[in-house]
Amino acid sequence: MPKKSSELDFVDTTVNVRYAETDRMGVVYHANYLVWFEVGRNAWCRAKGFRYGEMESRDGRLLIVAEARCRYKSPALFEDDVVVRTILAKATDRVIRYRYEIRRKNTGLLLATGETAHVITDRDFRPARLPDHYRRLFFLPAEK
Amino acid sequence: MPKKSSELDFVDTTVNVRYAETDRMGVVYHANYLVWFEVGRNAWCRAKGFRYGEMESRDGRLLIVAEARCRYKSPALFEDDVVVRTILAKATDRVIRYRYEIRRKNTGLLLATGETAHVITDRDFRPARLPDHYRRLFFLPAEK
Amino acid sequence: MPKKSSELDFVDTTVNVRYAETDRMGVVYHANYLVWFEVGRNAWCRAKGFRYGEMESRDGRLLIVAEARCRYKSPALFEDDVVVRTILAKATDRVIRYRYEIRRKNTGLLLATGETAHVITDRDFRPARLPDHYRRLFFLPAEK
Amino acid sequence: MPKKSSELDFVDTTVNVRYAETDRMGVVYHANYLVWFEVGRNAWCRAKGFRYGEMESRDGRLLIVAEARCRYKSPALFEDDVVVRTILAKATDRVIRYRYEIRRKNTGLLLATGETAHVITDRDFRPARLPDHYRRLFFLPAEK
Repeated sequence: MPKKSSELDFVDTTVNVRYAETDRMGVVYHANYLVWFEVGRNAWCRAKGFRYGEMESRDGRLLIVAEARCRYKSPALFEDDVVVRTILAKATDRVIRYRYEIRRKNTGLLLATGETAHVITDRDFRPARLPDHYRRLFFLPAEK
Repeated sequence: MPKKSSELDFVDTTVNVRYAETDRMGVVYHANYLVWFEVGRNAWCRAKGFRYGEMESRDGRLLIVAEARCRYKSPALFEDDVVVRTILAKATDRVIRYRYEIRRKNTGLLLATGETAHVITDRDFRPARLPDHYRRLFFLPAEK
Repeated sequence: MPKKSSELDFVDTTVNVRYAETDRMGVVYHANYLVWFEVGRNAWCRAKGFRYGEMESRDGRLLIVAEARCRYKSPALFEDDVVVRTILAKATDRVIRYRYEIRRKNTGLLLATGETAHVITDRDFRPARLPDHYRRLFFLPAEK
Repeated sequence: MPKKSSELDFVDTTVNVRYAETDRMGVVYHANYLVWFEVGRNAWCRAKGFRYGEMESRDGRLLIVAEARCRYKSPALFEDDVVVRTILAKATDRVIRYRYEIRRKNTGLLLATGETAHVITDRDFRPARLPDHYRRLFFLPAEK
């Protein structure tokens, strides 16, 4: 049976806000938080000992984004150091879910929270299982 | 009392997918759908007879994105003509909610659905009411 | 011998400025003009009767960007209708060069000019020639 | 008289390539290199002891991009660590010029070179001089 990951299973990574990411409101344009979630997932993978790009190119497994959601609490500003906390929220044989918390680094102020859901597929976007060496990283039981 | 808008109150606009919007999976990068939602909102405003930029610069009212959500059904591809349907889902004195449906134009295939919630603020990001000439466009009763 | 295209060989297409494309200076972020150049090239291809995406996926020919340059004259603003004029500047067996002029639609004000150079390659990024049915569109003589 | 900066006056900063920055060719979309140049400039400013955002918001001086150019030598790939070298190329009372070299970190392979030119303006985009405490950082003589 799939085991839920613990809330303690998180990885933090820091992003420095680019001018390109701001908009004429003077704050970060909201869609860029989804890019930061992606940066967070990449960091989560590296903390687990693999690169997401290798999972795609070597193992032929893709984590297709099926849903993304973000709640914006306080605006991120140009040159802010922003900490992206990526939390594995749930993993089953078919779907991986992450949660995110984005905070201003120097004050800890919560800027946004979010979630993404990812379907595990092969290169042709058909549902597929992860190889065993990935399954344990996502707290999934090994295949028989 | 605030009146909910009808589901019939929608505006369609077409976006042609840019190479810049694709990623190495060969499909549109998921965060760009939130940009298309914004394109849809701009078209919704123009269909109502105003420009969102004017609401900001002339009337000092901002629709701050408080939440965004997207469910991805089928990938959009480079050079697809994509129809963004923007639906006013709910309007109160403080919050405007939109729903979106994104379809491939030639087949009508549903690619994604989504929602955004916007807090109405003044230039200093403090909650504020819309002037009367906007209120009726959002199906809000006139102020006394 | 390769024939230079005439300056008269241009295609115009209109882009409406997105909020996402602005930055905290209140104007369009400069890198986005290169995206508009791409939108212009796509329109140029369609005006010639083909889709660039088909050249890649069906004919296995890529126009790799080897150089890009932009001079910024006057800022583009949110919700501006901006006309991208794409001009085939030069074509040889190996390199295609385009020039661009970007103007505000309602006033004709010149916002930017630019150039890109593209190496023609196969799917493995090795230099390759265009098939005959493309060569004439770029004013290249047919292969023997 | 304005003094040219030495070629030795450079600052290196590292960018990890995001999935969002790739395109369907499987490599980084060319416009993103201009964003990396901006990341390089921000790092250059911090290395000099100030933040570019402060120059704008506190001192009311903007470095408007007047020209940008990039030559692409070899593609950057997803998850590459990419070193952006930012070199102050020239500074006068009115214009600042930077050069850039972008290399893959682990091999040192040159991926791209580029230049940007920036006009120094006030908040209303009118040409303006830098305050003295910035002038020396750009190797400009102090005002009388």
